[in-house]
This record gives sequence, structure tokens and C-alpha cells, in this order.
Amino acid sequence: MSESKALPVAGIELGGTKTVVAWGLSDGTIHEEHRFPTTRPEETFATATAWLRERGTPAGIGVGAFGPVRVNPAAPDFGSLLATPKDGWQGFSITGALAAAFPGVPLTLDTDVNAALWGEVALGAAQGATDAAYITIGTGIGAGILSGGRLVHGAVHPEFGHFKVARAPGDSFAGLCPFHGDCLEGLASGPAIAARWGKAAADLPADHPAWDMEAWYLAHGILALLAIVSPSKVIVGGGVSQSAGLHAKIAACLEKITAGYFGEGDFTDLVVPPALEQEAGIRGALLLASNH
Amino acid sequence: MSESKALPVAGIELGGTKTVVAWGLSDGTIHEEHRFPTTRPEETFATATAWLRERGTPAGIGVGAFGPVRVNPAAPDFGSLLATPKDGWQGFSITGALAAAFPGVPLTLDTDVNAALWGEVALGAAQGATDAAYITIGTGIGAGILSGGRLVHGAVHPEFGHFKVARAPGDSFAGLCPFHGDCLEGLASGPAIAARWGKAAADLPADHPAWDMEAWYLAHGILALLAIVSPSKVIVGGGVSQSAGLHAKIAACLEKITAGYFGEGDFTDLVVPPALEQEAGIRGALLLASNH
Repeated sequence: MSESKALPVAGIELGGTKTVVAWGLSDGTIHEEHRFPTTRPEETFATATAWLRERGTPAGIGVGAFGPVRVNPAAPDFGSLLATPKDGWQGFSITGALAAAFPGVPLTLDTDVNAALWGEVALGAAQGATDAAYITIGTGIGAGILSGGRLVHGAVHPEFGHFKVARAPGDSFAGLCPFHGDCLEGLASGPAIAARWGKAAADLPADHPAWDMEAWYLAHGILALLAIVSPSKVIVGGGVSQSAGLHAKIAACLEKITAGYFGEGDFTDLVVPPALEQEAGIRGALLLASNH
Repeated sequence: MSESKALPVAGIELGGTKTVVAWGLSDGTIHEEHRFPTTRPEETFATATAWLRERGTPAGIGVGAFGPVRVNPAAPDFGSLLATPKDGWQGFSITGALAAAFPGVPLTLDTDVNAALWGEVALGAAQGATDAAYITIGTGIGAGILSGGRLVHGAVHPEFGHFKVARAPGDSFAGLCPFHGDCLEGLASGPAIAARWGKAAADLPADHPAWDMEAWYLAHGILALLAIVSPSKVIVGGGVSQSAGLHAKIAACLEKITAGYFGEGDFTDLVVPPALEQEAGIRGALLLASNH
């Protein structure tokens, strides 16, 4: 079925540190992929488009990009990077670069986290969900959100990591966010964990108290999601999420702080790791390619 | 234009303490309305349907109901009240009562806050917005949310008041929520204000420190909305919101805590009172009546 309908498409996952390009099908199948460091925008897109052009002309291109990026097709600066500290990227037009390389090929652009969520909804841990979220915890904290079967874009752009949550008992760490200090990202990103405990997150053993505190903050972030968009599945991914047992700790904390109010369901079934692991974003980008 | 297309419809705003029924048009025009106390469900619906039947058979019925209520038409208990402490209402079927009184008449059911938001989007303070929220602050705190032009329902039901926000400096009030103590509703509802300051909210002068603290909590709740669904308009209504200057205080606090991260816009333009005042919910219900 899907083979007869799926089109040859290109996917681009543009991350802050690495970029992935893939040649595959609009059903999310990857035929070939290429990973390389994200450098300056012109160079990054030259590498991506040269690699893709060797493979042919795709029927569509799907992009999941780091942000903030303008994803509203009606906006005059659609496809451009907004205020990013990343050198050379502010104002760069992703859609412009791709239209020059592949004139006339339809393009679908979304955030990296929405692309990853889209992959997980179609093929991974959130299959069948109409309301779901994909939270990534690494250098920063972000989330893609699906509401009523559609990816949430909002009027400007959601920035999940940048709201304030209740402090974990005994935590007096000031927080690392240059804008907000102790917003969720400022308290619970990878660099925040490292700064608080004096050791990289990857080097902290699973029974270190750092992980109970991390679970507290993520559970409080997810509680806000439950209160505002009521997802049936919350995928927690990103490098920091790979600590053994973290998802179970988050679920246990969530069960405690919701106190039965958001249903008696099993929160270990709500808070799950990505099923597509590192491929969620690029497979989501291929799936988005047929979405224009 | 609208007169030639608008149909005669019925609207019902079912509140925890009062019910409003209206006869009007599907463009939100009210011809006649009737307000009465919400008592037990059978009696309340007998009053509502008798009043409506005297006016004719509507082309559609729109209902905005207090909750939690099942608004997903695909659910087996669609139209029923869920776990509510309100005497006699748990398990009552709104759709069943209306189908018995008006067989064959199409029914659209949503939450009271979504109905009020729908009214404000069509005719009030959020006209033209595709992403907006309506927060009501009274006995409890709730919100209706519009994302990408559609009302958010979620997998279970959003319960905006029941997530935890950062404590206001110096506030040690335990909070009133029977489930969560110091969730947003537990700290900032009308009864919470009264319990903290020993005086009803309506009796606290506009320059009382209670309102700075109230603005803090509401601004932090709105910050979570910005981070998760990115609305361009946040309407703050309900009895407690009527304190003079509260919207400006919330906007000022929000400007401070966002620290330029969510755009340099004027937050006094983001945080506004309802333009339809007490009529938002019932006009929204009339508008919903044509939405089946």
C-alpha cells in the first residue's frame, strides 16, 4: 500500500550542532542519509543541497529546523531564522536557499521538535495520538506539540523551556538561562545539571540525587502541558533523557503532583522515550515533505 | 450579509451557579435570554428546554458547560459530566437531556471557557486571532484555548488552573486546592485571595498588595501559555478580574518575567478584558450552534 503511494522526497534535520539530510520516501522510509556538522548557513546548505542533488530531484522537501524560525507560510519572513545567537544564522532564509537549489519543489518547514514529534506520531511512540508532545532535553529544552491532530505553531512560536516552574525542595541553584535565570531550561537543561552538580549529566550515575531533581522539574513542565493541551502521550528525548530510569522517575513524580486530578491512568504509559530514537527528526522531515 | 445566512438557534451557558439560555441567531445575535440558578440537573434542563420550546424549534443548539465534561463526540460518554463535586451532576448527560427535548436537532457542546473564547474570537477582544486564550478567575481558574483557529480539547480535558507556578516572593499561603494545595487555582482564585488576606476580593482596594501578588500568579500562568501555545491575545475575565488596573499589572509583570524573549510587543495589548463582558459565553454558545 504505502510503497505504491509514497513519493521520493528529501528530508533535512537542521540542528544547532549537526545537520542530517536524507533521501527517502514520503512515508518516512530512509534510503540514505548523511550527517555533518552545522557550520555557517551558506556552507551548511551547500553541503546539504549538493548531496541531495546527486540523488535526484525530490517530489518534495521537508525540513525540521532549530529555532527560533518563522514557520508561518503567510509571514513575509517565512523560512528565516529569527533572533538566534548562532553565528551568521539570524535572518538566514532556509526557504530561499532551498528554492534556489531546487526551484519549483514544494517545501514544508517546521521546527526540529515538531518534526521529531511528527515522526513519532506516524511511526513511533505516539502512533494514533491526536494530542501529544515531544520534549527534548539537551543543551536547551524545547517541545513539539500536537493538538487535535495538528502541530501547534502559535502566533509567534512556542518556546517550551522558557516558563517558570515551582522550585524543587532544597534547590537554590540560580539557573543558567541568560534571559530568565531559573526558567525550566535554566534549571533542567544539560548545562544546568552540569553547573549545579559539578559534573556532566552523562557522568552522573542513575542513583544520583540529580535525577530526582531533574524528574521534579520535567514533571512540573509536563504538568503545565497536561493543564493546557492535555496530551495522551509525552515523549521525552534528547541526550539528557538517556539516563537510566529517568522516564519512570518523571512518571512517579507526575503521579504524585497530579494527585488523581488528571485521570487515574498509568503515567509510565504517558511519559515515554522516543521509539525512533535518533531518527525521529529526520523521518519526521521526510513525512513532512508530503504535507504541503 | 449575516442576516441572510444566520439561522435561528438556541444557546445554553451552563454554569456552576447560574444558567443562561438564549434564543437568537447563529451569528451570535441574542434575541431573548433567560438567566436562572443552576440547581439539580433534571430541574435545570427542564427549565431551559421549556423556555426554549416556547420559542420554537431551533436549527441547532450550542452549549457551553461547566466541567469536567466530555466534549469529544467520539467518546461513549460524550456530553456527560465527569467527576464533579456538584451535587447530582456527575454522570448526567447534557446531550441526552437535549436530544429528548429536541429530537433531531444538531447539538454542539464545549466547555464554558471555550464557548466564551469562541464568542470573543468572533465578536469581541480576540477578533482575527488564530491563537488565543480566555482565562476566567472566580471560584476557580479555567481557560479556553484556541490553537491554529481551532478550540483545544486535548485527550482528556485541559484544566488550566491545576498546574504549579513559581511562588510570589514572600507568599507562604498554603493554597486552597483540595487536590494540589498551591496550584495556580489554589493560590489565585477568588476564595484563595479571600483566605489569604481575610477579606473578599471585591472588597480589597485596587492599591492593596493582594493585586500585585494576583498579577504575579496570573502572569506566570500566562507565561506557561506563551511557552506552550503562543497566543496573540489572552483575555482575562471572571469576577476577580474586575479589580481596576489588574490587566495592566499582569502585563507589567509579564513584560518583566519574559525579559524580551517572547517578542518586544506591548503586553497591555496581549492581556485584555473580555469585550463582550458577561455575554461572551452565551454568544459563544449561539455561535457554536452552527458548528456541527
